[in-house]
Amino acid sequence: MIPVAIIGASGYTGLELVKILCEHPGFDLVYAATSEGGTTIQSLHPSLQKVVSMPVEKADAKDVARVAQIAFLALPHKTAMGFAAKLLDLGVKVVDLSADYRLKLKTYEEHYCPHEDRSHLGEAVYGLPEFYREKIEKARLVANPGCYPTASLLGLLPFIPSMKEDTPIFIDAKSGVSGAGKKLSETTHYVTINENIFAYNPIEHRHAPEIAEKIYDRFEREPQVNFVPHLIPVTRGMLCSIYMQLEREIDPIEILQEWYTSEPFVRIRHKPVDIKSVAGTNFCDIFAVANGTTLFVSSAIDNLLRGASSQAVVNANIISGFDETLGIPKFAYVP
Amino acid sequence: MIPVAIIGASGYTGLELVKILCEHPGFDLVYAATSEGGTTIQSLHPSLQKVVSMPVEKADAKDVARVAQIAFLALPHKTAMGFAAKLLDLGVKVVDLSADYRLKLKTYEEHYCPHEDRSHLGEAVYGLPEFYREKIEKARLVANPGCYPTASLLGLLPFIPSMKEDTPIFIDAKSGVSGAGKKLSETTHYVTINENIFAYNPIEHRHAPEIAEKIYDRFEREPQVNFVPHLIPVTRGMLCSIYMQLEREIDPIEILQEWYTSEPFVRIRHKPVDIKSVAGTNFCDIFAVANGTTLFVSSAIDNLLRGASSQAVVNANIISGFDETLGIPKFAYVP
Amino acid sequence: MIPVAIIGASGYTGLELVKILCEHPGFDLVYAATSEGGTTIQSLHPSLQKVVSMPVEKADAKDVARVAQIAFLALPHKTAMGFAAKLLDLGVKVVDLSADYRLKLKTYEEHYCPHEDRSHLGEAVYGLPEFYREKIEKARLVANPGCYPTASLLGLLPFIPSMKEDTPIFIDAKSGVSGAGKKLSETTHYVTINENIFAYNPIEHRHAPEIAEKIYDRFEREPQVNFVPHLIPVTRGMLCSIYMQLEREIDPIEILQEWYTSEPFVRIRHKPVDIKSVAGTNFCDIFAVANGTTLFVSSAIDNLLRGASSQAVVNANIISGFDETLGIPKFAYVP
Amino acid sequence: MIPVAIIGASGYTGLELVKILCEHPGFDLVYAATSEGGTTIQSLHPSLQKVVSMPVEKADAKDVARVAQIAFLALPHKTAMGFAAKLLDLGVKVVDLSADYRLKLKTYEEHYCPHEDRSHLGEAVYGLPEFYREKIEKARLVANPGCYPTASLLGLLPFIPSMKEDTPIFIDAKSGVSGAGKKLSETTHYVTINENIFAYNPIEHRHAPEIAEKIYDRFEREPQVNFVPHLIPVTRGMLCSIYMQLEREIDPIEILQEWYTSEPFVRIRHKPVDIKSVAGTNFCDIFAVANGTTLFVSSAIDNLLRGASSQAVVNANIISGFDETLGIPKFAYVP
Repeated sequence: MIPVAIIGASGYTGLELVKILCEHPGFDLVYAATSEGGTTIQSLHPSLQKVVSMPVEKADAKDVARVAQIAFLALPHKTAMGFAAKLLDLGVKVVDLSADYRLKLKTYEEHYCPHEDRSHLGEAVYGLPEFYREKIEKARLVANPGCYPTASLLGLLPFIPSMKEDTPIFIDAKSGVSGAGKKLSETTHYVTINENIFAYNPIEHRHAPEIAEKIYDRFEREPQVNFVPHLIPVTRGMLCSIYMQLEREIDPIEILQEWYTSEPFVRIRHKPVDIKSVAGTNFCDIFAVANGTTLFVSSAIDNLLRGASSQAVVNANIISGFDETLGIPKFAYVP
Repeated sequence: MIPVAIIGASGYTGLELVKILCEHPGFDLVYAATSEGGTTIQSLHPSLQKVVSMPVEKADAKDVARVAQIAFLALPHKTAMGFAAKLLDLGVKVVDLSADYRLKLKTYEEHYCPHEDRSHLGEAVYGLPEFYREKIEKARLVANPGCYPTASLLGLLPFIPSMKEDTPIFIDAKSGVSGAGKKLSETTHYVTINENIFAYNPIEHRHAPEIAEKIYDRFEREPQVNFVPHLIPVTRGMLCSIYMQLEREIDPIEILQEWYTSEPFVRIRHKPVDIKSVAGTNFCDIFAVANGTTLFVSSAIDNLLRGASSQAVVNANIISGFDETLGIPKFAYVP
Repeated sequence: MIPVAIIGASGYTGLELVKILCEHPGFDLVYAATSEGGTTIQSLHPSLQKVVSMPVEKADAKDVARVAQIAFLALPHKTAMGFAAKLLDLGVKVVDLSADYRLKLKTYEEHYCPHEDRSHLGEAVYGLPEFYREKIEKARLVANPGCYPTASLLGLLPFIPSMKEDTPIFIDAKSGVSGAGKKLSETTHYVTINENIFAYNPIEHRHAPEIAEKIYDRFEREPQVNFVPHLIPVTRGMLCSIYMQLEREIDPIEILQEWYTSEPFVRIRHKPVDIKSVAGTNFCDIFAVANGTTLFVSSAIDNLLRGASSQAVVNANIISGFDETLGIPKFAYVP
Repeated sequence: MIPVAIIGASGYTGLELVKILCEHPGFDLVYAATSEGGTTIQSLHPSLQKVVSMPVEKADAKDVARVAQIAFLALPHKTAMGFAAKLLDLGVKVVDLSADYRLKLKTYEEHYCPHEDRSHLGEAVYGLPEFYREKIEKARLVANPGCYPTASLLGLLPFIPSMKEDTPIFIDAKSGVSGAGKKLSETTHYVTINENIFAYNPIEHRHAPEIAEKIYDRFEREPQVNFVPHLIPVTRGMLCSIYMQLEREIDPIEILQEWYTSEPFVRIRHKPVDIKSVAGTNFCDIFAVANGTTLFVSSAIDNLLRGASSQAVVNANIISGFDETLGIPKFAYVP
């Protein structure tokens, strides 16, 4: 059993990490912390009473290093890199759920803030196992992708080689409200979003450059990526509807099969995907259909699991030499 | 007061017609019918008890002609054209909410069924007031557009002249469940769609040719129209997210203002629109933003009102020489 | 046209007042205010753009008195009584939507705070028209009941004479989230209440003494009132399930008919009521059934209308000698 | 590993049984059937693709007996007893999720239909482990209680000894829509129940006699049980609000602790319970508070798990001599 720690145990992704790691046959959750500490997991998350019982400490890198070999960081960006730097220097491997190590320096500083851990940025591996598995195996710092890039990239990457030159990609993404976190805001007030739907930060959202960067990273192509997120009245789940223009007519299901048939956490569907079939799991369900040289791809994930916590544990499995599927949730919240 | 009739009073759009026409200062609802008859409006729609009291007859064209000058047909396609033909021959003007007179013969027969009223098809006017107002004024047969084409066309038509040659349009539409009508189906079962979202009939939906036809009708351009409807867990409302490629950089708000500033039922918004602000009204709210030569347009309507019943009454207002806004709902179901 | 004012135009009940008064044939909305002022109605409530256009002032009693004969106060308790006192002294009639004048002094101070307008408290009339109509006619200060007491009292008052001595009343109330107002709180966060339901302040809620006081007021009986509110995942609407023990077997529908047959805004239903049929209206729908000497009553209202704003305008109608139903919403938000 | 079978694998409770049994360390799911057969589990339930792969047979008692030692029956009442009788005669133990063996003969026939397996009815044990554990240990036929009686009985039974003579119990129950099963109906149409709530079969519901019978069974007391179920707009979960009158003042939390402190699947809460904290688990969360001699109890369960499938597996654990908690879901669907 490999001892592991969670830094940032109070939010939604922290809770999901606790739920997975408590049952995981290869990891032993020995340390949980928040910025304040002084409580217990079951007080922070009352649904865990009679299930999990453990103290929540005030986050301290040295304490982590004393007891754990891998740390999961479920912290806001900027805070995360402060911790990650210390942990790595103390010999702790890091799976970081924040944005801090996902981008190249220039892209990061353009869209977030000055980077404060340039020394480790270069060794960070992007934690999308289907495309970075071999690098993750050797990594000690994994930048776990967020929900929007995960669902988008898994849906569109297989089709990049078939894209028509100089045409843009359109990603119309729909996210459940839990993606916005626990913080109160007018947008996440029940009365605002119930019986409603709306786009936010259209086209200007900072996930577009992340998606563009990974497309280039893999295929050395630079299509314009237009990303429009929408908030929908559901708690969890994300659906990405992707529109692309192709060089020639293709059989999109066949292409998906070439890429994903042996992938344990991608399911190719023969009709449009829905979020209920993936909520509660690490699966990404994908459907695609072409109309001549126009392509529609529909991909669905659980934003808190495949888009955060369960993907983080998959990455930890890979780092640790475990079977990738060990202890990963696969039964959906259906009906 | 002009006496009017509703044929097809039992469905959601029939109910909305009753609610509007009962309060309308210029129309007198004198006749309501269903295919079976033998009941009352307040029995069909219990929310109308102590509000409206009138018999519901077995639909009969001659009975309509005896008492009414205008008939609203809230019937399934195919059934509608049977009635419309008779009513027109008896001198009754018709606002038809079905698909039967919306398309050119060839397009209709390709996507629906053989047309059984070719003699009147030619004189039908497409009831989208912002673009067909002058023809509607003189019409005796108005083909009321459905919710998807209404929201899509109002959003995209102003930008057709600015489109880049040979580029496709992508419409990612999201509809509330009432759009599927009263009929029970697995898709509209609460457990299926609650906490869920999914596309259906992607790219192959029959509203795409209708939208394409109207684009050509107005601008003689034939961009490929890719239409992907999604079902969302809300009762009423529709949001269309539209993606287009432009010939040159434009100021999209300025273009919207050129077209719509004086329109009573289009509101140009400076941030992404939502369906709550239009649910319960005849408004179409529109927002647009460009990223270089890529355009994102977001349009929202109430699928049962602007997408059906209130637009039908606007058309009847125009036919009758009334002010277009007479008796039309404008207060949204907020909060 | 009687000129009227709204003090407190920014909240949900303020918005509903605006929507009703703008269309009301007898009232002329000449003044709207908030505690800060300096804005417009259409900025506060974007759904009103192209519908209503009027300035929002910083609330000032003298300004109100200069232009209006009746003022609607949609203010928090305590703030309301400050304004009401001044307005009454300046000759403006007041319909107060807060709790400030609903209770006898002792009850008020026990459950709220010290009362600061004892001089007017005595003349305030409780604005439940079905039971206080004659007093309202002559009032210049109406204490408009809130949603919980309105739905509860309309359901249970007719059965008080049939109650068994020394038995308690149980009211299991379910309220939509808009009842908690616009203020952000963990309880009204979408993720908290979506797919959830829970009781709050059970048995200790301060509406119980209000209900008890009105029962005594009318029937001089003092049954113990046990009130348990629940929050449900809907935006608007309220359902009260009431349980009582009877002295003898009765026909509950017959009793409801004796009390309510001629009431314009109470509908007696022959099967359990639902909130959709009343949402958007001033109706209270009531159903009752007995099991021997045990009684179940189910009453439904729109919490923001019958439970606040439309009932306030009904009270203003009565004060003004108008027909009680003048300009009052009656078409439900169905489907 | 004990080989087990599921008869009735196509419904919601069948799906939940599959999900639990596939991961259970003590049971081996060797047989799944429906009335038609000829399919696979992953076809019936697409969310199980890449998770579970097994054929679904046409249900046959002899086939079951050949391969399994315990059978779970997730069948409609009446159909269930036909199968149970055969299985028991063939030596297979039965956990029946239907109503067929829950009641005494007379009560059953009064509320359901003539009983067709009187020979086994007498030996059936009511599968509410907290109150029937010792009998379940020796049973070969367990009548698994449904969701309403489970949530109601766990909440009220501890307080029966404290009840005032000749006073009724009121149970105001709120159920998620999945409780109504997969069958399409107007009530479960999304448009009907979304943004709505209503009682159904008030006071006359057939779960009242079941609850009454178990109260008598345990305490030989016969209070009148008034049961009013409501449908709420959530997919899963159930909340029961229970009102009782007490002989004397008590400390309700203390009483709950006496009964439940060592129970693994009951959690005593110090504030009102909610369904989100139990959805996805076998827990019953209970809160209680008294107002003098009036008692309010609030209990919450997952209607498909504690109210059906996970409780069934707990019963199978007990029958098999396993730890009661073995393989039983305990992590809630939060956030």
